[in-house]
Amino acid sequence: MVERRIPISVKEAVMRVMKFAKEGKKEEVSIYECNGRFLCEDIVANHDVPSFDRSAYDGFAIRSVDLKGASKEKPITLSVIDEIGAGQVCQKRIGEYEAVRIMTGAMLPSDCDAVVMFEVVKEGRENDQPYIIIDHEVGKGTNLSFQGEDVKKGKVLVEKGTKINPGIMALLATFGYEKVPVAKKPIIGIFATGTELLEVDEPLEKGKIRNSNAYMIMAQIERAGAIPVYFGKLQDVFTVSYEAMKEKLASVDILITTGGVSVGDYDLLPAIYKELGAEVLFNKVAMRPGSVTTVAHLDGKLLYGLSGNPSACYVGFEIFTKPIIRRYLFSSKPHLQSAPAILGEDFLTANAFTRFFRSTVSWKEDGLHTVPSGVDKSNIVTSLAFANALTILPSNSTGYQKGERVNVLLLEEEEGSEWPWN
Amino acid sequence: MVERRIPISVKEAVMRVMKFAKEGKKEEVSIYECNGRFLCEDIVANHDVPSFDRSAYDGFAIRSVDLKGASKEKPITLSVIDEIGAGQVCQKRIGEYEAVRIMTGAMLPSDCDAVVMFEVVKEGRENDQPYIIIDHEVGKGTNLSFQGEDVKKGKVLVEKGTKINPGIMALLATFGYEKVPVAKKPIIGIFATGTELLEVDEPLEKGKIRNSNAYMIMAQIERAGAIPVYFGKLQDVFTVSYEAMKEKLASVDILITTGGVSVGDYDLLPAIYKELGAEVLFNKVAMRPGSVTTVAHLDGKLLYGLSGNPSACYVGFEIFTKPIIRRYLFSSKPHLQSAPAILGEDFLTANAFTRFFRSTVSWKEDGLHTVPSGVDKSNIVTSLAFANALTILPSNSTGYQKGERVNVLLLEEEEGSEWPWN
Repeated sequence: MVERRIPISVKEAVMRVMKFAKEGKKEEVSIYECNGRFLCEDIVANHDVPSFDRSAYDGFAIRSVDLKGASKEKPITLSVIDEIGAGQVCQKRIGEYEAVRIMTGAMLPSDCDAVVMFEVVKEGRENDQPYIIIDHEVGKGTNLSFQGEDVKKGKVLVEKGTKINPGIMALLATFGYEKVPVAKKPIIGIFATGTELLEVDEPLEKGKIRNSNAYMIMAQIERAGAIPVYFGKLQDVFTVSYEAMKEKLASVDILITTGGVSVGDYDLLPAIYKELGAEVLFNKVAMRPGSVTTVAHLDGKLLYGLSGNPSACYVGFEIFTKPIIRRYLFSSKPHLQSAPAILGEDFLTANAFTRFFRSTVSWKEDGLHTVPSGVDKSNIVTSLAFANALTILPSNSTGYQKGERVNVLLLEEEEGSEWPWN
Repeated sequence: MVERRIPISVKEAVMRVMKFAKEGKKEEVSIYECNGRFLCEDIVANHDVPSFDRSAYDGFAIRSVDLKGASKEKPITLSVIDEIGAGQVCQKRIGEYEAVRIMTGAMLPSDCDAVVMFEVVKEGRENDQPYIIIDHEVGKGTNLSFQGEDVKKGKVLVEKGTKINPGIMALLATFGYEKVPVAKKPIIGIFATGTELLEVDEPLEKGKIRNSNAYMIMAQIERAGAIPVYFGKLQDVFTVSYEAMKEKLASVDILITTGGVSVGDYDLLPAIYKELGAEVLFNKVAMRPGSVTTVAHLDGKLLYGLSGNPSACYVGFEIFTKPIIRRYLFSSKPHLQSAPAILGEDFLTANAFTRFFRSTVSWKEDGLHTVPSGVDKSNIVTSLAFANALTILPSNSTGYQKGERVNVLLLEEEEGSEWPWN
């Protein structure tokens, strides 16, 4: 007789998994290698930025007091006694009615308190001595960038768990992070199950299909920030499969299998989890696709039994595996980014389970619009290629109408959510 | 005297650059290496999916004609004469009142035309011969996935220029792409200029700052899909700089310099472009930050003179360099993804130039909201760390008020725009 499983809610299932979430290991990598990695420590400013008062433009450093009363009728002439480029430091004292030619980013001479731009002065030269004529007053501090104006020393700039992007690279360089503290990428092992599966390099045969799940999951693992290791197909014999899983589990942080978790005659995973002594957290979730998703736990490691069905496999990974990986990478927002959206099509069938539609969202005047990215059958692989979101349709008896407000989970968004489940 | 440059509009500047856009080279990589790369050819279905009629569930393959008239009062018994798992093919003929036990994904025996699920039959066994009892009629085609239902052979599945994501990986595996045709990544060389620049491993000195632009641009180049090569700082001597640029230009597809394009005394790039014989496309754009952005062209290669100011450098790359890289990667939507948004803060200063604010967008009920991601001065590097968008504020005399509708360019969105400039 077929085993009857009791489904639990998506929220409850995620909660059971997240009890095993933990921060991972740390390592240091060269700044040249750190783009796209996740910070494992807060980045703190180790000096003020700017670290000195500097000129914001090309022009002349002046003493504002000298220009008191300057006007078109009464222009004032200053003698230009030095010239400094960015990176140079003026070694002279600047006295009354004296100025220094200065370039953008150069340190303001200590006797000066403002800069006038090239464009608003008249330059001249007399007896080989350059001078400038200025026909207006200039306020103290004009055209300067002040020490600490951008960042004060000691400020937390970026929190741990953040993915390093180009802007963060600029900060790391500014503060001299030649070596960058990042989360070690966890190793995620993958086994595929199913005698119907051909590998990508095998010719098609009657009754068989190529294994697409393993390659898809590898890319999902990379997108999540971890390292995939594909161990190939599990053989269809219990003891061989059991031994293979037991052996490989030792070498990975998480072990994923695709297929074999349903209640069919060839679904070996339930028995393998039992033999391994793994604690099954759940084996039925009130969601479609992915209701047979099974997660088990053994000695601090999670074992994911994802459905063999491509869409169910995809959704199961994003909802249950990705947040565990992101917590390992020190993120405090490990779940998929949630966003409100407007349904672009009717979905009028009643649903006992929460549905996750593979969707394409687009930005319109009245907000995010979401439409299914392919024919909605859970075996249909093409819908995944154009999916940039999962539309959440909670169970109800009437379905949903075009124009209704729903929530979507954005698949490519790096920010993430703390907890998108109500 | 200071050179007076005539600014051109952002749209005009982008148009001048895009005249030199071209598709790049092709290469084949293993499916294991292709995630995140850009397809250089359309991916076409080389067989139907499914490639045969198959069972959508675990159950029994039946002939619907046998169940005509079945009801609770008049249940019908079928003899189960074979059993097939996914990947197996039934070798027997199925006659009247016969059925085959079948697993999800297995090929439907040619004599059958529907599947009944385990859950709705009563199973029994007599003289070692299993049978099932069914108490309802079953329509032809029930619980099947039909050949070609998902994809018909010959269909274009994904267009060239698309970035490979997990769903596309699944398609590539399904259609046997052991080797995947992708765009060769262009090589982008980088020189930094500026005597004020210290490298990331040098201690801070008075008047100097660390070079952050080169590291930032390297990450931007990677995000765009190309390979950065940092050549270090150009020396402050014209002939040495000229020779270095001339030599390295031969080894790259695009050459970027940061700094040295303004009208300051130490800005060498204009003279270097002249000496190289490069045609300057523009050297002043009506935008902030980045008005001094200079682009030149020599023998089919573009030379980007980006501003030395971090924000201006960042924006100049995203607007003028990224679309050239994306066209090289075969994309037909090479520009940053444009989206309508609501301004989350006032920007009341008048602007003669179009402004690009480094912004953080968030998804709210009434649409995308955009707020500046840091203090808005173009020298301020921290605003870049949290920027996921650039807010476009066209020039006007009144500024903009909170709540006004604006356009943003999404920095992390892979889809892209054909042409976001009105």
